[in-house]
Amino acid sequence: MSAISGRLVVIGLGPGDPRYLTTEAAAALGEAQALYGYGPYVDRVPARAGQSRHPSDNREEAARAAQALGHAAQGINVALVSGGDPGVFAMAAAVCEQIAAGPETWRALDVAFVPGVTAMLAVAARIGAPLGHDFCVLSLSDNLKPWSLIERRLDAAAQAGFAIALYNPVSRARPWQFAGAVERLRRHLPPATPVIFGRAVGRLQEQVAVTTLANAAHETADMATLVIVGTRETRVIERPGRSPLVYTPRAIPPAKAEAIA
Amino acid sequence: MSAISGRLVVIGLGPGDPRYLTTEAAAALGEAQALYGYGPYVDRVPARAGQSRHPSDNREEAARAAQALGHAAQGINVALVSGGDPGVFAMAAAVCEQIAAGPETWRALDVAFVPGVTAMLAVAARIGAPLGHDFCVLSLSDNLKPWSLIERRLDAAAQAGFAIALYNPVSRARPWQFAGAVERLRRHLPPATPVIFGRAVGRLQEQVAVTTLANAAHETADMATLVIVGTRETRVIERPGRSPLVYTPRAIPPAKAEAIA
Repeated sequence: MSAISGRLVVIGLGPGDPRYLTTEAAAALGEAQALYGYGPYVDRVPARAGQSRHPSDNREEAARAAQALGHAAQGINVALVSGGDPGVFAMAAAVCEQIAAGPETWRALDVAFVPGVTAMLAVAARIGAPLGHDFCVLSLSDNLKPWSLIERRLDAAAQAGFAIALYNPVSRARPWQFAGAVERLRRHLPPATPVIFGRAVGRLQEQVAVTTLANAAHETADMATLVIVGTRETRVIERPGRSPLVYTPRAIPPAKAEAIA
Repeated sequence: MSAISGRLVVIGLGPGDPRYLTTEAAAALGEAQALYGYGPYVDRVPARAGQSRHPSDNREEAARAAQALGHAAQGINVALVSGGDPGVFAMAAAVCEQIAAGPETWRALDVAFVPGVTAMLAVAARIGAPLGHDFCVLSLSDNLKPWSLIERRLDAAAQAGFAIALYNPVSRARPWQFAGAVERLRRHLPPATPVIFGRAVGRLQEQVAVTTLANAAHETADMATLVIVGTRETRVIERPGRSPLVYTPRAIPPAKAEAIA
């Protein structure tokens, strides 16, 4: 199959604003002959002469990945764009799943992944260093895994003292999951545990709010929100005339570690 | 204290090569009057007329953060550079700790954090999508927390079916920790569980290796290595004439989820 000269590059655009784009991502976008992705992500990439555009709907990851692979197998240099980083709850796994299940020609293709700034890093940077110690990263969507497993993982993460980054906290089809997760975490963590809501970070509508686990269920979360739940050690630094800083210290003294272990 | 016009920007350089730098990071580096950081990271930034350079040794995070804050408080625009992302086992938490403990003037300072591509995202992108499902991020350094807590967290992460990204697997002062972690994980995960070693990713000496949990302790890890341990679901796609792809599927079917929960 030496006739296959196509290429698929799965590119992380970062959280929104072009300032988060890496040099590597910009170069890969410039070389692509065809551009695939969820519509709003494709919209972020300036139109370019000779580059075809193939936006698709949300929740069509498998079909989108297969289309991009099929197009690349025709000898085309294809870019598939993802928000954030393609490897974190985004298109890279969907592409691998399609390659595993698809025709043998897809395994002969040149496939590359270009990392990007994923939402949790952008939200953390807005507020300080809430992920400055060990942490877990969890999607609250129960479309692809049962809710009981999400509860099991929330328990494990909170009990072991990990900070927690929550992707996909809520959607129109999943209205109660975020409140359910907060209820679950309150079994293990003090009411004063800092919780950060980052909405549309890196975009014009950006909003970052700091609250506590006791009040977290009253905050509005949506599809574009990333939530970070701190640990028992996470601190808030109030600053006169400036927004507070939130950080999780790098050290856990032995006495506090024993309470966890 | 309106006399304070200085600024401290804590900047993530990404994993090494300039291609990982974001537009925002490049702009912030260009504006800085003074540059602080661990020597090898400062070396990555091209010298610039009118910008002073203040490299420091490894394991001097607290002193480096305090020096950079002190310099900014003199009305200077200071950049403090970090490898990867400043919020993930890097300088952001150290800066917040110094602000919390330092003089009140430091809380009046303009402090900003510029996110970057952290090592686990770069290593994952080299190999496919091993972090394509829920995952934990853990430093194996027991300088700032007891080893018993690390074991507790490895147990929790593996038992709950998280993929695991391990930072700082080994150093000259901590030669046995990585083998200890592998031994611990083998209590919970099958010997065939895929394990990825990414060394110096994004640099000339880059090496990425895929092995199994059974053989992981025989791989060489060092300070510049990031290790990703898969889950029971993580798959390897062998490709003729190309390096394998490793990915963790996005879905867990209810029957498999029950075995975890």
